[in-house]
Amino acid sequence: MKMIKVGIIGATGYAGGELVRLLSQHKDAQIVWYGSRSYIDQKYSSVYGNMFQIVDDKCMDDNMEQLADLVDVIFTATPQGLCASLVNDTILSKVKIVDLSADFRIKDVSVYEKWYGIEHKSPQYIEEAVYGLCEINREDVKKARLVANPGCYTTCSILTAYPLVKEGLIDVHTLIVDAKSGTSGAGRGAKVNNLFCEVNENIKAYGVATHRHTPEIEEQLGYAAGEPIFINFTPHLVPMNRGILATEYAMLKKKADGSLPTYEEIKAVYDKYYANEKFVRVLEKGVYPETKWVEGSNYVDINFKIDERTGRIIMMGAIDNLVKGAAGQAVQNMNLLFDLPEDEGLDLVPMFP
Amino acid sequence: MKMIKVGIIGATGYAGGELVRLLSQHKDAQIVWYGSRSYIDQKYSSVYGNMFQIVDDKCMDDNMEQLADLVDVIFTATPQGLCASLVNDTILSKVKIVDLSADFRIKDVSVYEKWYGIEHKSPQYIEEAVYGLCEINREDVKKARLVANPGCYTTCSILTAYPLVKEGLIDVHTLIVDAKSGTSGAGRGAKVNNLFCEVNENIKAYGVATHRHTPEIEEQLGYAAGEPIFINFTPHLVPMNRGILATEYAMLKKKADGSLPTYEEIKAVYDKYYANEKFVRVLEKGVYPETKWVEGSNYVDINFKIDERTGRIIMMGAIDNLVKGAAGQAVQNMNLLFDLPEDEGLDLVPMFP
Amino acid sequence: MKMIKVGIIGATGYAGGELVRLLSQHKDAQIVWYGSRSYIDQKYSSVYGNMFQIVDDKCMDDNMEQLADLVDVIFTATPQGLCASLVNDTILSKVKIVDLSADFRIKDVSVYEKWYGIEHKSPQYIEEAVYGLCEINREDVKKARLVANPGCYTTCSILTAYPLVKEGLIDVHTLIVDAKSGTSGAGRGAKVNNLFCEVNENIKAYGVATHRHTPEIEEQLGYAAGEPIFINFTPHLVPMNRGILATEYAMLKKKADGSLPTYEEIKAVYDKYYANEKFVRVLEKGVYPETKWVEGSNYVDINFKIDERTGRIIMMGAIDNLVKGAAGQAVQNMNLLFDLPEDEGLDLVPMFP
Amino acid sequence: MKMIKVGIIGATGYAGGELVRLLSQHKDAQIVWYGSRSYIDQKYSSVYGNMFQIVDDKCMDDNMEQLADLVDVIFTATPQGLCASLVNDTILSKVKIVDLSADFRIKDVSVYEKWYGIEHKSPQYIEEAVYGLCEINREDVKKARLVANPGCYTTCSILTAYPLVKEGLIDVHTLIVDAKSGTSGAGRGAKVNNLFCEVNENIKAYGVATHRHTPEIEEQLGYAAGEPIFINFTPHLVPMNRGILATEYAMLKKKADGSLPTYEEIKAVYDKYYANEKFVRVLEKGVYPETKWVEGSNYVDINFKIDERTGRIIMMGAIDNLVKGAAGQAVQNMNLLFDLPEDEGLDLVPMFP
Repeated sequence: MKMIKVGIIGATGYAGGELVRLLSQHKDAQIVWYGSRSYIDQKYSSVYGNMFQIVDDKCMDDNMEQLADLVDVIFTATPQGLCASLVNDTILSKVKIVDLSADFRIKDVSVYEKWYGIEHKSPQYIEEAVYGLCEINREDVKKARLVANPGCYTTCSILTAYPLVKEGLIDVHTLIVDAKSGTSGAGRGAKVNNLFCEVNENIKAYGVATHRHTPEIEEQLGYAAGEPIFINFTPHLVPMNRGILATEYAMLKKKADGSLPTYEEIKAVYDKYYANEKFVRVLEKGVYPETKWVEGSNYVDINFKIDERTGRIIMMGAIDNLVKGAAGQAVQNMNLLFDLPEDEGLDLVPMFP
Repeated sequence: MKMIKVGIIGATGYAGGELVRLLSQHKDAQIVWYGSRSYIDQKYSSVYGNMFQIVDDKCMDDNMEQLADLVDVIFTATPQGLCASLVNDTILSKVKIVDLSADFRIKDVSVYEKWYGIEHKSPQYIEEAVYGLCEINREDVKKARLVANPGCYTTCSILTAYPLVKEGLIDVHTLIVDAKSGTSGAGRGAKVNNLFCEVNENIKAYGVATHRHTPEIEEQLGYAAGEPIFINFTPHLVPMNRGILATEYAMLKKKADGSLPTYEEIKAVYDKYYANEKFVRVLEKGVYPETKWVEGSNYVDINFKIDERTGRIIMMGAIDNLVKGAAGQAVQNMNLLFDLPEDEGLDLVPMFP
Repeated sequence: MKMIKVGIIGATGYAGGELVRLLSQHKDAQIVWYGSRSYIDQKYSSVYGNMFQIVDDKCMDDNMEQLADLVDVIFTATPQGLCASLVNDTILSKVKIVDLSADFRIKDVSVYEKWYGIEHKSPQYIEEAVYGLCEINREDVKKARLVANPGCYTTCSILTAYPLVKEGLIDVHTLIVDAKSGTSGAGRGAKVNNLFCEVNENIKAYGVATHRHTPEIEEQLGYAAGEPIFINFTPHLVPMNRGILATEYAMLKKKADGSLPTYEEIKAVYDKYYANEKFVRVLEKGVYPETKWVEGSNYVDINFKIDERTGRIIMMGAIDNLVKGAAGQAVQNMNLLFDLPEDEGLDLVPMFP
Repeated sequence: MKMIKVGIIGATGYAGGELVRLLSQHKDAQIVWYGSRSYIDQKYSSVYGNMFQIVDDKCMDDNMEQLADLVDVIFTATPQGLCASLVNDTILSKVKIVDLSADFRIKDVSVYEKWYGIEHKSPQYIEEAVYGLCEINREDVKKARLVANPGCYTTCSILTAYPLVKEGLIDVHTLIVDAKSGTSGAGRGAKVNNLFCEVNENIKAYGVATHRHTPEIEEQLGYAAGEPIFINFTPHLVPMNRGILATEYAMLKKKADGSLPTYEEIKAVYDKYYANEKFVRVLEKGVYPETKWVEGSNYVDINFKIDERTGRIIMMGAIDNLVKGAAGQAVQNMNLLFDLPEDEGLDLVPMFP
């Protein structure tokens, strides 16, 4: 088939770099534009030495108008606000957009503006944008012009709880998500907080009760629950490069006879949703997700434990934040947009150790 | 004053090694017995190269009878079951014992035997043993013969929530403790799971709903609450050497007028219990504990955040698992037992980075 | 083409695990035997959770006789001595063998027995075995029955200096190799020395002047030099999972006019040998190898710096010890043995970060 | 005795922070000025959370004139050039200065200006400045007004080879220093290169043949050798917070009978210089330095191995770069300047793990 021409805006951030890694191995796609305002005219491989002799191109400016004439799909792996400030009707009529920022993830613009603290520059496209969590919105993505690629924490948090929320097995008002992330999630900006010596041999919570991924999780799980929900979401910074682990707690709803659902009943619900999902692996009983087991791949590993003593279920999910949490899911969305096999270019075997 | 003669059984594990580090700087104590069955007759500094030219002694066998005649206090930093199998009336009449294992932490022997899966060899001493969480049981420790030094996770988990439980500010039945620990907590045993390549670049939960520190937390917080409680406790293994961070969630009880307690009200409760506690630092508003900030020291750093949206409070506590979570607290207990200033030898400034 | 049937003896070590990762993505090869004496009858994916739903097979015993009837090629990723103790004429008549251990790397059996401290059980095959450093012995590998896959340190050390040794540009008697390796090179055995807490936040030299890869480097560079050479080789253990960096020092031979060779002259020599080698990347001037840039790939990154002040050249090379230093090179050898494109299944883009 | 009043310029860099850690435990010194231009008027403990409730002071500007009237000794833990631009006769008449930058380390100003690329602003003080490598220049330090505190790499590199150079046992023209450092050596500046994700799981050489510590090592070892020497010095960045390991290579001079010196002969030379040095530990035969064994302490661990095959000796030394390589040595110099016991406040037991 004809190669899909790809433009990346923000190609030198960590998510952008991962897009380059994945797309350079994708047989139907070709990157023709490596946008990076900070490195214009510099060779891409001078920024990411791993790509030496693999990518020979230079970095370009972030001109979305010009790009729309050159490519079939644009990935924006940029800070919040940039995509919303650039997109317009002309562009959307020419090209598909997969936005890895948060600009089009939240349907209620006031919620976006409150949590992100910036004005939304093109709210008129929020409605049509499709939330690109492929396992849930697959059919809508196929028809979209503008895909809002989900956040890293949100992808992991939502998929881990989704079947139980959707089937009404847990009390959604008791849901707590305690998440742990590798440091690449903080991006490649030169900040003291992200220096090696500040992160190494350290763990901390941050954005406690205020992290921006909270309303995104609430919105999506709210759709599944059929009612608005409010959760506690606490992210933690872990001294590792990649990986997110979400540990989630909720009260199980009791059955009519007053007993808790069994392992087998819960497992059956997970299987109902995920048994045919290539990228979701519900682990065997008693085996809990480890981020290293999904590193470099597009997998989400999930499992759960029922605690009879407290009546709660502990759900755990693990992803590679740069793959399923960013670039991998973006490519999965691209595959859907262009009617390719959903796993094209994503047959990535996790690397261990 | 006269030097306290100290014997350590299990001196070559990580907790034992930390006891040696701390006691070698303690002006009133002198280690005269480095017990380590695995390294008998080998120089202690050949096991821990950091102690070269600081400790010249050789490792000895674990003979508690003989030791009781030689020393004033015995620290047992050994696997569960050993201390209980060795202790007897004669020994207790001659020497103080600070047991760093779990043998005498839990008052209900059936709970101990169920969670630890071993028979308790000297249940007759459980009653008199004092749970050595100094900030809470200070006065009882002073009079004890046998101190049950608390677990690492439990020290952190209990102290983080204690004031709010004690004062009835939270619904204890909603308490969830999501804890993260460095790898030294797993001990120095040669196990594949603890190899560098298995731990590095990885995070996972383990012992989900089954970890042995659960009943210990429940018992102690139950005393504070005045009723039995059951919690969810989930430990995670973090790729770092030292440090425990406990992130704890609970529903705040509403006040008579239906409103939530304020930041100031909660802070006042923490201050009531901890303002005069040298080793407990309640951080400034908006500053959350980081394990690196307590590394090498006996501090517990604590803070909290009220989430008005969900009605929950998120409490966070950080310790160095080998110091306040093991050897530091053991020395603190020794100081109490021998009527020394409680912080003698524990004036340790955290090391950063 | 017909699938190559592969048997792995030692499939659950780190090198074995990497073979499984690489071969599971190789379009012309199929693993039919996952040998692992320690895990017989256990699912392979219960040992390496990353392979869940990718490999469904169970581990088998290490029966080379039986295996020879089932497969086209056997990889032995086992401790020294095992391959030599199993191989025989019958087996070699039926199947190709790529031995990842040191058994057939060294031509002088007395050197092998001295450095490895074991008796060689089948010295009669040493002569015919081909040293599988593909870039140098490509044509011989194609005709071999038994390939001695090079060591990790040796691959990196040899390729980094090879062109200059071969062309006589350096005084080989001044060659010093100071090498640094990630911890996966130490294998998956449960040893205290390789525990996370012993390796993390630490660097040390080991095997100083006695490491077994020394004679292997000397032999191969001796062939290139046309004379026996003796070098200093010092390995160091680095707190990271993967990667070897070799920093090598040698006196440059002066030219007839007494001057040192120029950067361009040295570069031309490297290019003569490596410009057409896909897996060897000679970096741009002033850019020095970093192990992270080759992680997960079969690349060797090389560069050098001439120090006019001392007359020495500093050569640096980086590989992923588990790929080009073990499994990747083994697959490269397999490709040569079966007349496949040499890079089949090895089009691996390095992962960063 | 009267407390020594201390001012620190550059108190919020990593070396400055370590000075604060050490001096806060020093019984005869008191910090009265925490200079940090970047954090003026902010609480010191808001920058370094480890110092919460230990240091209550705020950060001040870097006014050396004013400071000279307030304190007995000024530590400058600042970038190159600052101390030289501030110091003058008036200041030196009032106060002792220990400069942790390179400004006064190198006697030949043209060498300084060439390697550092900046003009020296007060070359008139270079002559009187004493190079504060205490083990070698102890007596001169005691009489100094201005101490040039040695670099981290240089301290380790020099002390490791010093006895053999001084006694003429090695051919100094063959000396090669291959050094490895933790990341705190790179400082606390917000640079992409020092981000966690760039350093973690990576090792690289940098400043190859151009690192600024080269001429400092050459000058000091040149004094010991009695002739100018030129060496190769290659630093490497290691994914750990603290620690420097120097691996050094040189040809041993043969004895009159053509044989190499024995282990015992070399050991005797090391003992001659270091047996009475508290902070230098020459390890037992066959035990090689590990950076973790000196972490947090002022020790230098040293050992060596003679390679009969090549005629070379491999010398290895390890320090904590922030202690013996910076703040610890600075305090040691202060102790000498004020006639205190040299180890006052430096009785630091290394922390493991």
